[in-house]
Amino acid sequence: MRGIWLEDGKAAVRDDLPEPRPARDDDCVIRVAKAGICSTDLAMMAGLYPFTGVMGHEFVGRVETGPADWVGKRVVGEINVACGACDRCRAGLEKHCGQRTTLGIHDRDGVFAERVVLPAANLHAVPDGVADEVAVFAEPLAAALEIFERADIRPEHRVLLVGAGKLGQLIARVLARRCPDLTVIVRAPAKAARLEAIGARTVRADEIASEVFDVAVECTGNEQGLELALAALRPQGTLVLKSTFPGRARVDLTRIVVEEITVIGSRCGPFDKAVALMAEGGLALEPLIDARYPVAEGLTALEKSRAPGVLKVLLENH
Amino acid sequence: MRGIWLEDGKAAVRDDLPEPRPARDDDCVIRVAKAGICSTDLAMMAGLYPFTGVMGHEFVGRVETGPADWVGKRVVGEINVACGACDRCRAGLEKHCGQRTTLGIHDRDGVFAERVVLPAANLHAVPDGVADEVAVFAEPLAAALEIFERADIRPEHRVLLVGAGKLGQLIARVLARRCPDLTVIVRAPAKAARLEAIGARTVRADEIASEVFDVAVECTGNEQGLELALAALRPQGTLVLKSTFPGRARVDLTRIVVEEITVIGSRCGPFDKAVALMAEGGLALEPLIDARYPVAEGLTALEKSRAPGVLKVLLENH
Repeated sequence: MRGIWLEDGKAAVRDDLPEPRPARDDDCVIRVAKAGICSTDLAMMAGLYPFTGVMGHEFVGRVETGPADWVGKRVVGEINVACGACDRCRAGLEKHCGQRTTLGIHDRDGVFAERVVLPAANLHAVPDGVADEVAVFAEPLAAALEIFERADIRPEHRVLLVGAGKLGQLIARVLARRCPDLTVIVRAPAKAARLEAIGARTVRADEIASEVFDVAVECTGNEQGLELALAALRPQGTLVLKSTFPGRARVDLTRIVVEEITVIGSRCGPFDKAVALMAEGGLALEPLIDARYPVAEGLTALEKSRAPGVLKVLLENH
Repeated sequence: MRGIWLEDGKAAVRDDLPEPRPARDDDCVIRVAKAGICSTDLAMMAGLYPFTGVMGHEFVGRVETGPADWVGKRVVGEINVACGACDRCRAGLEKHCGQRTTLGIHDRDGVFAERVVLPAANLHAVPDGVADEVAVFAEPLAAALEIFERADIRPEHRVLLVGAGKLGQLIARVLARRCPDLTVIVRAPAKAARLEAIGARTVRADEIASEVFDVAVECTGNEQGLELALAALRPQGTLVLKSTFPGRARVDLTRIVVEEITVIGSRCGPFDKAVALMAEGGLALEPLIDARYPVAEGLTALEKSRAPGVLKVLLENH
């Protein structure tokens, strides 16, 4: 099987990968139609997470084999495969299961390949009206929606989003639907242009008022972005962290204490809500796609994805 | 008037301070009976906050002049004096008023002196059954109670407190009343002994299990304490920050994102609830007093307060 293999932080296109094999009773073999490159993939290549295996966790595909009611269905899939038996799983915290594997990230081969295996429990059928080019955004869209699961964000809130990259664009879209007063700090004009379609106000970092926002969402993963987000919040405001940071970050904790800020970490989110939202339409997701490559040209695709201003790059199997 | 004056980070006992004068209609002149030395006072002497004036913000005293219904009353007082007119004040966030002065901390002379001025709006009468030696803890006790105002902490929660210093001891006391499963990380035996009275389990840092606590409260103000608190939390656990940190602290934000931790900054708290709790009794506050000095010996008192293992040091006017 052809796929993009990561080892010691080096990605390579290989044609000799073994076909993925079902292990659990409900495992499905899925033929990947399209896969999206995420900043986490690039971070793994930079050595930020140790992982050996097939890369990739954002995808849409079709079930080839598995439980009868799933075969032939077009699907997207949740990336954490939990044990289902531990205290956390029983408490509904499957994504925090200590035994979990994570698609293309931890102990489980991912989707930058012809085929992938996931349990049916992780799958969500894609409604007919949702194109592959939209459905491939299910995973990051769910992660964006997780903000609302974790933080109390209301229509009357004044909201700041810091960063409008691959994930930030999706966060902007879900925030804009709930909060009319949304401001996005964005540097690259190419990224700002992609926010016009959804009516978000884009500004430069030096145009932001201090201590006025009810909510700030940080998705740059760098200290400057964090500092901007913190400084923009009113006392008792809420800072949502959506990006991981390389190493330890320097943080003005005294401001968090004195201004009584709440900081909320947020990761993977609800696929069911993401799929429902895509079915509603109007998210302007396809304009986020900057390039498409076959898996055979995976290294070019990864390189392209890393270029400044580039948003979603897809890998496709035909 | 005699008092302890701070200027350029240097404290000095002075006998030539002007008597504090009422400015607002409801200002009261209060004769200070006892004042407590807090870690913030020591931090100001180390130059962490720029302040020039009479030090001190924890006190109990008696109103000498002011509105008729306050004169003669024994009182404690909230430390933030707000403008009362701005958006934040009108929203009930007086302690975050941008125009506020803060007793002995920012633009307002404090309580390490014979007399102090505070508006009646800041005062709370001390019930007869509450001794001065207890009432003097009103301010830090209110700060400890603020944890419950900001975070959802329930009796069934497994709670970790990191640090049992001047403020930590009070936090331990309010946590122990709500949460039977309370563990306190404490280094100095002298501090651990003061927790036995309230039945809290004390442990060393290396005895703590990882990823099991629902709530961790950090009140060491150092990176090691923060790291311990974060590592001890289960996924989607809550970290309460009660101490300020010198400079920027290095924080593992990736853990906060991946484990979806909520971090809650918390500062000054509800005096009414603190006074009510002191009236109930049973907090074992007096054993926290390690030394008492007249204001004339203020520098010795401050020195004593800084010594390892020393908890509350009082300044007294006779």
